[in-house]
Amino acid sequence: MTRRTGRRPGNPDTRESILDAARTTFAERGFDAASIRAIAGTAGVDPALVHHYFGSKDQLFLAAMNFPADPGQLVPKVLAGDRDGVGERMVRIFLGVWDSPAGSAGVALLRSAVSNEWTARLLREFVTTQVLRRVLEQLDVEPAQLPLRGSLVATQMIGLAIMRHVVRLEPVASADAETLVAAVGPTVQRYLTGPLST
Amino acid sequence: MTRRTGRRPGNPDTRESILDAARTTFAERGFDAASIRAIAGTAGVDPALVHHYFGSKDQLFLAAMNFPADPGQLVPKVLAGDRDGVGERMVRIFLGVWDSPAGSAGVALLRSAVSNEWTARLLREFVTTQVLRRVLEQLDVEPAQLPLRGSLVATQMIGLAIMRHVVRLEPVASADAETLVAAVGPTVQRYLTGPLST
Repeated sequence: MTRRTGRRPGNPDTRESILDAARTTFAERGFDAASIRAIAGTAGVDPALVHHYFGSKDQLFLAAMNFPADPGQLVPKVLAGDRDGVGERMVRIFLGVWDSPAGSAGVALLRSAVSNEWTARLLREFVTTQVLRRVLEQLDVEPAQLPLRGSLVATQMIGLAIMRHVVRLEPVASADAETLVAAVGPTVQRYLTGPLST
Repeated sequence: MTRRTGRRPGNPDTRESILDAARTTFAERGFDAASIRAIAGTAGVDPALVHHYFGSKDQLFLAAMNFPADPGQLVPKVLAGDRDGVGERMVRIFLGVWDSPAGSAGVALLRSAVSNEWTARLLREFVTTQVLRRVLEQLDVEPAQLPLRGSLVATQMIGLAIMRHVVRLEPVASADAETLVAAVGPTVQRYLTGPLST
């Protein structure tokens, strides 16, 4: 609960105060309802200062999550190409982040999300608004199915990250990325665009 | 590292001493190489006492993991029926355990495995020797592919458990079990018996 300290008037580290306020507000209200204005209010600073330090709300969210990659740049790469290849490209790009040095920040985030309800809320918001919604909006699938499709993708991708990088179950832990792309890509593709029941 | 205390000669709780020794030994040596004799030696008791308290090595492992269900009883139910239905039955039976009151012990185990390397080792051994090997041995697939197939199944099943019960991403968190069986069953089936690349 150290994230819920809210306003820390005596703290000279304004940037950290804003990040703390952002984590609290994103977790409590969700990404869509959390405004820069509300976050600034919680941090006790002017909204212009939040924009000055962090730019957009998306970028503030990435900074608050300490997330090692920017889905705003990666999602277009997932979508660039034929619709039937989205699953494989998503797995390939996802593994590219996780297998890089930046992946250790992702591991820390997963560990925290599994043990801490507030980080779990942030992770839910992050996965949904920054990754899945952006991909699914472009795929022309039945709108009513989007939430289930998105959360099924999350079960496979988070499970893959945990088994490869946290629990380290072999041979998934040390398999080359393309072996996993070929094996898991069709799963993600079906969750995104295929039939969800037989 | 509290599990690595080994022999605790002054401790009157012999049963707990044996369980501690079992956790240490299973994590250090793996399930197959860990003998009742070695566990008894670490606990400072006679091997006959270990058998008296816990029965078989499988049962001692379940007790050491505080695991809420016995795969030795569940795996035959997964295998009972046509080969093409193994994936769906595995998801259905898995969700039956996780969605029951006993599932909270599973959640505790997952949380611990994600934050603690020793529990992660135990979980790896458990998933591999108590669940996946028993299922895959009966399915007549290429032996060289068994480890990859088994660990792919684990990515999906553990990811499903984490998203449904720990991170609680909707709608997977509250979907009825049969919706998930229909959606995820074909994934597990392909990992078990289908093509792993296109």
